[in-house]
Amino acid sequence: MKKFAVILAGSGVYDGAEIHEVTLALLAISQQGGTYQCFAPDIDQHHVINHLTGEEMNETRNVLIESARLSRGDIKEMLDYNPADFDVLMIPGGFGVAKNLCDFAFNGANCIVNTSVEKAIKETHKAKKPIAALCISPVLLAKVLGDVDVTLGQDEATIENAEKMGATHIKTTHGEVIIDKKNKIFTTPCYMLDADIVQVYEGASNIVKSILDTLK
Amino acid sequence: MKKFAVILAGSGVYDGAEIHEVTLALLAISQQGGTYQCFAPDIDQHHVINHLTGEEMNETRNVLIESARLSRGDIKEMLDYNPADFDVLMIPGGFGVAKNLCDFAFNGANCIVNTSVEKAIKETHKAKKPIAALCISPVLLAKVLGDVDVTLGQDEATIENAEKMGATHIKTTHGEVIIDKKNKIFTTPCYMLDADIVQVYEGASNIVKSILDTLK
Repeated sequence: MKKFAVILAGSGVYDGAEIHEVTLALLAISQQGGTYQCFAPDIDQHHVINHLTGEEMNETRNVLIESARLSRGDIKEMLDYNPADFDVLMIPGGFGVAKNLCDFAFNGANCIVNTSVEKAIKETHKAKKPIAALCISPVLLAKVLGDVDVTLGQDEATIENAEKMGATHIKTTHGEVIIDKKNKIFTTPCYMLDADIVQVYEGASNIVKSILDTLK
Repeated sequence: MKKFAVILAGSGVYDGAEIHEVTLALLAISQQGGTYQCFAPDIDQHHVINHLTGEEMNETRNVLIESARLSRGDIKEMLDYNPADFDVLMIPGGFGVAKNLCDFAFNGANCIVNTSVEKAIKETHKAKKPIAALCISPVLLAKVLGDVDVTLGQDEATIENAEKMGATHIKTTHGEVIIDKKNKIFTTPCYMLDADIVQVYEGASNIVKSILDTLK
């Protein structure tokens, strides 16, 4: 049973983790015989978005508390993550990754990554364990690790920023997984493309399968 | 392409719709060739629960706005639902069903159902179209329609209350679907049992398949 640590960024595509990507990643992990433990930093969200109107709400919400909605309450604080306890680190997407786990949504290639998330990525990479990033999350890997191969789908502005941070970008379409064998980095575009929920499930399933194949 | 209307009750198991059940129901609908449109009533949640601690938070959230997180913003107000536009009405579970769509969590068999949800159920039933209810949601059908066959898994207290409302209860385990052919009511227990995410996906897939089989 391979153990996945999954980093969440809130709960909701516009200010948190993308709900379908998280749920379908957890499903894919379980279906393929893995187990998962979710983690999130105990910090305020950058902002709260009304998902009906797209407008900002005059509220404050906490990333760890909102992320707990996605895992039915079973979640740990990001600082409690230790790569020795897991086989894989996985980061699903959603704007919250680019707003809460780092500030890529506002500062692009000059973004700053949350220190506990940065530590998790660095230590997992140092331990030579696989890291999987879906959707927009590969920008975190580009910023923290620099020279890695990733995909962010097709969006030119995002790709340009990833390359500025030192990454090599490979364009992909639905369900494709880019594997950086040397660095054990796995990425797939999911909702970075104009995807439907079945395509997102394919991406999540394929990335889990790719990782488990390399761990055999 | 069969069209599913899906009623949401917020976003999060303890005060809204159960996130995995909703996501996996939407996945199952899409995988089996259907389309979906989400609906939710424009009302305040009964309360807001911190999903990390289980404690109530001093906040007010709106069911329609929070439900929009589950459908990436694409959602309509419950009163805009017209059974003539759809082939199936589906209601995933979560405590929000028993706290926001009705007050079953507090008043059991004496519960009152939200008027727009009651109207949707009554009119769909009158139009002789299938209604699917997952997890705790069959209590809505028991209250509104009375003499229907449903499953709520194995929980004795919940079963007793459903029977007080006039329903006939059939005990089930993971992935099983109870079909009331006469009333076109489909129910499956999902997280009413101590289920894992793969079992919930099986339940969602099986209930969608059962409905589509009867619509052939």
